[in-house]
Amino acid sequence: MYLEKINSPQDIKGFNAEQRKALAQEMRDAMLKRASVHGGHFGPDFGIVEAVIALHTVFDSPRDKFVFDISHQAYPHKMLTGRRDAYLYEEHYDDVSGYTNPAESEHDMFNVGHTSTSISLATGLAKARDLKGDKENIIAIIGDGSMSGGEALEGLDTAGEMDTNLIILFNDNDQSIAEVHGGMYKGFRELRETKGKSERNLFKAMGLDYRFVEAGNDAEALIAALEEVRDIDHPVVVHIVTQKGKGYKFAEENKEDWHFHMPFDIETGEVKQEMTDPYAQQTAATFLRLAQEDEKFIAISAATPSSMGLTPELRKQLGSHYIDVGIAEEQAVAMASGLARNGAHPVFGDFSSFFQRTYDQLSQDVCVNNSPATFLVFWASMYGMNDVTHLGFYDIPMMSNIPNLVYLAPTSPEEYQAMLEWSVKQEKYPVAIRVPHMMIGSSSRAVRKNYDELNKYEVVRQGSRVAILGLGSFYNLAEEAAAKLQEQGITATLINPLFITGQDEVLLESLKADHDLVVTLEDGVLDGGFGEKIARFYGTDEMKVLNFGLQKKFYDRYDYAKLAEENHLTAGQIAADVMKVLG
Amino acid sequence: MYLEKINSPQDIKGFNAEQRKALAQEMRDAMLKRASVHGGHFGPDFGIVEAVIALHTVFDSPRDKFVFDISHQAYPHKMLTGRRDAYLYEEHYDDVSGYTNPAESEHDMFNVGHTSTSISLATGLAKARDLKGDKENIIAIIGDGSMSGGEALEGLDTAGEMDTNLIILFNDNDQSIAEVHGGMYKGFRELRETKGKSERNLFKAMGLDYRFVEAGNDAEALIAALEEVRDIDHPVVVHIVTQKGKGYKFAEENKEDWHFHMPFDIETGEVKQEMTDPYAQQTAATFLRLAQEDEKFIAISAATPSSMGLTPELRKQLGSHYIDVGIAEEQAVAMASGLARNGAHPVFGDFSSFFQRTYDQLSQDVCVNNSPATFLVFWASMYGMNDVTHLGFYDIPMMSNIPNLVYLAPTSPEEYQAMLEWSVKQEKYPVAIRVPHMMIGSSSRAVRKNYDELNKYEVVRQGSRVAILGLGSFYNLAEEAAAKLQEQGITATLINPLFITGQDEVLLESLKADHDLVVTLEDGVLDGGFGEKIARFYGTDEMKVLNFGLQKKFYDRYDYAKLAEENHLTAGQIAADVMKVLG
Repeated sequence: MYLEKINSPQDIKGFNAEQRKALAQEMRDAMLKRASVHGGHFGPDFGIVEAVIALHTVFDSPRDKFVFDISHQAYPHKMLTGRRDAYLYEEHYDDVSGYTNPAESEHDMFNVGHTSTSISLATGLAKARDLKGDKENIIAIIGDGSMSGGEALEGLDTAGEMDTNLIILFNDNDQSIAEVHGGMYKGFRELRETKGKSERNLFKAMGLDYRFVEAGNDAEALIAALEEVRDIDHPVVVHIVTQKGKGYKFAEENKEDWHFHMPFDIETGEVKQEMTDPYAQQTAATFLRLAQEDEKFIAISAATPSSMGLTPELRKQLGSHYIDVGIAEEQAVAMASGLARNGAHPVFGDFSSFFQRTYDQLSQDVCVNNSPATFLVFWASMYGMNDVTHLGFYDIPMMSNIPNLVYLAPTSPEEYQAMLEWSVKQEKYPVAIRVPHMMIGSSSRAVRKNYDELNKYEVVRQGSRVAILGLGSFYNLAEEAAAKLQEQGITATLINPLFITGQDEVLLESLKADHDLVVTLEDGVLDGGFGEKIARFYGTDEMKVLNFGLQKKFYDRYDYAKLAEENHLTAGQIAADVMKVLG
Repeated sequence: MYLEKINSPQDIKGFNAEQRKALAQEMRDAMLKRASVHGGHFGPDFGIVEAVIALHTVFDSPRDKFVFDISHQAYPHKMLTGRRDAYLYEEHYDDVSGYTNPAESEHDMFNVGHTSTSISLATGLAKARDLKGDKENIIAIIGDGSMSGGEALEGLDTAGEMDTNLIILFNDNDQSIAEVHGGMYKGFRELRETKGKSERNLFKAMGLDYRFVEAGNDAEALIAALEEVRDIDHPVVVHIVTQKGKGYKFAEENKEDWHFHMPFDIETGEVKQEMTDPYAQQTAATFLRLAQEDEKFIAISAATPSSMGLTPELRKQLGSHYIDVGIAEEQAVAMASGLARNGAHPVFGDFSSFFQRTYDQLSQDVCVNNSPATFLVFWASMYGMNDVTHLGFYDIPMMSNIPNLVYLAPTSPEEYQAMLEWSVKQEKYPVAIRVPHMMIGSSSRAVRKNYDELNKYEVVRQGSRVAILGLGSFYNLAEEAAAKLQEQGITATLINPLFITGQDEVLLESLKADHDLVVTLEDGVLDGGFGEKIARFYGTDEMKVLNFGLQKKFYDRYDYAKLAEENHLTAGQIAADVMKVLG
């Protein structure tokens, strides 16, 4: 076996074609076994094996610098750069992150997990090299799915004006997470069909030199092509055609399903334990009904339809009431504003972390114009994704401080449903809804149907001395903490704030009469968040305020329970902290 | 005179070529006189007169819908849509905003002021039209400078897949605010030189139909071209070549200087009163020295070099130590991260409002990677630009809640200088500096040289009972308020926090000993800002906290003094509010 002896890229430099072929097979075998047990990204890694072998054969990493876009396709790279054990031995599977990570290896330039950044980052590496008078190659590796993102296109434009070494390996497998969307993909298809000769060439239009390699899963062809551009004195795009999921039948056949995959049976391809977000399914079901009831309804995705539970079949059913703009979150948000301005009822859903791409569009395109579009923010929770690049903690400070936006925090599927229905129908406000995390189950509490009266909180239970404001996903935690306090003889007032973006000043004022302490719980960082606004409100009063949430910090692959405990986010800790303040 | 009789676009429908020519001249005459007295955008409006006449001749606004990108070129459109008086009569000059504004007219679709949004917004209008079964034309009007922005490119990509009416009028004057930068501009030049025949065609590469009109300042040629695409059944780009500043010699000759212009003498073109930001000049001077001292220094602009005082001459002097990425803020920030990662010392400066484009790049590309790049945030103040689309109030909540970022708030030119020098040299932290607004003058206070000890505030004067934290530009206000309090016999402690992104917990703790009240002053919205964090810190203490800043709201063309008063941001009001709390 070759793989288990590879400690660094140096170890494959002398390989011949046959050895490389054998190595590629070993790498796929290892990844298949690991994926079947551990889960993770699949298709992107299976497709790029030969390209990574070629890159490490031709270039001299870490002197030459690779920037993997989004980097969920970096497994093969990790295998060849001292981290093979994490792919060979089950006990080491968790030694590595799912993305490139400079803390793991000098061969990783950046910790990335959002798409479309590689070219921009590479332009910076290249320019710094030139300032220092160095000579290494800078190589960005980017897939066709990522190319539709604004940052990638801005990067191409800057690269197109640079007069120095910069190699962009364009890995075209004709697939994003789901199918690709956007006019540029017509051009890419033509390039594939004409072996790079079509006039519709985005890269040339951006001022770049261009090469085409049809056999993107043939290491020998790739090596020949890369040899030609090594030490090139100007930016060049090397367009390679690869097959996503190559080498595993089921992944080749169903690319969307096998982009990322949970553990499965290798023989049958069947997933061992389905992970489904009931809120995604609920969203999809609601969309299907709305599309039938309301000709103006439209759902928008930025290449993550699964966030909203929209399978290929359901997307087909939505027909003209669905649009996927590709990985282009800015476009999704601005388009939603345009849709709303012309009378439609648009809903754009995505994961919390990817809304970070849209601050300016939310502010300017939507909120300055008060466009009544709806935004569904999924996995906005410390119980969402736990990679540092995909945290769902920051949307409250990011979004809730934008004027005019109504940011709602439902506490149950029933409340989410009511808010979604209200929001799609109303034509007054830009509305975002912070969808609860998937463990938040049904509630029998009555649910408000109309949210027109902004910033009106709900008092679920009237108590005294302590009032607990449990925001969204943390409402349940508020109930649990209240139960603990009850054991100590304290009947806390329980409040469901519903609105993240404004304070119920009348209610807050009234609490002063018979409460000494107001507690806030929010499922996100404290800095710039919900609780601090309550602290400001009571700044000059006798009322004490205790804010619970996460400390501002980047957390990576954390243990959920441990993070909760470290931040005093268990019912017992909250109750204890409250008792301490009450004295 | 034609212009003074035009109440709506209907009034020009029957004009012949001669009348249109006369009208165009009248419009330029009016704009010239107005600009000479009032100031405002210049070149963009002078270049587009004929195109606007043609648009309103061929299309039927407001049924047909125009979306002007950034919309600082919308003066001619306003003249023809019921707002001529604002361009004809001095007493009405301020009746209109400098941008399109639905509150002014049904002919304005959006309130916009940031670039690169028009295509995205137009795709939304078009899709909504189709859902409703309507038939109007949707027309986005976008300049070549705006085309480099990621949002515009994402919009093109989505447009390229749409199968419906959508017209993109691409107004190419070969100029951004400064000269254009990016590889796409090579393609645009080739298209101009080949009368649209070059293969380097970004629009075709994006899947779009394409037409070329060389005579972009000839209304007749434009009318003929637009007649051809009216009611077209698929998206099309109409590329027109215009002259920025056309019709006024000085503006034609110096396009950068006349993009926006202060009042001037029409005969000589000389500005009546130069408006220069001393902080911009100080920045430019520092850059020139740093470029000589440090081979790794590099200044980055995203098409607004003037924000950093970088005139064409100074940019030339900076040579390879300067790069303009065009209107592409995401690229600028990500590139800065790449530069820092490879050992360079990058500084990216821009206006506060445009940093809104870069939330995700600051978070992911820079801060997750802890890249030691420097970001200079100009005009981050209520005393900056007062158009609703250009407010400098939101950067504190937007940026300061991102982990790892060190956001500094200098209180004087001397402190700004020290922070800038420290930041460029250090290689540990991503640093942003909130440059004071231009009225903040010199201070004789000693200035710290090293900011490595994060979140260490400066106690400028030790007092008792009340401590005032005057952040950045508002430190002077803190001093003034303290002087008022002194008149009442109270010697307030005066604190310069220096750091926006963290609390000096030791100092805050120590204040408890002999202070009853902590006051915070910040030059921005309160929500998600600096003061609320102080309120949270003291949440369960006896200490009272009073936060001064702006209410979260969009403000448009406000009166500075009035806004200050409404938000209790005068020294007298602050002192009075403090006395009320002290009782």
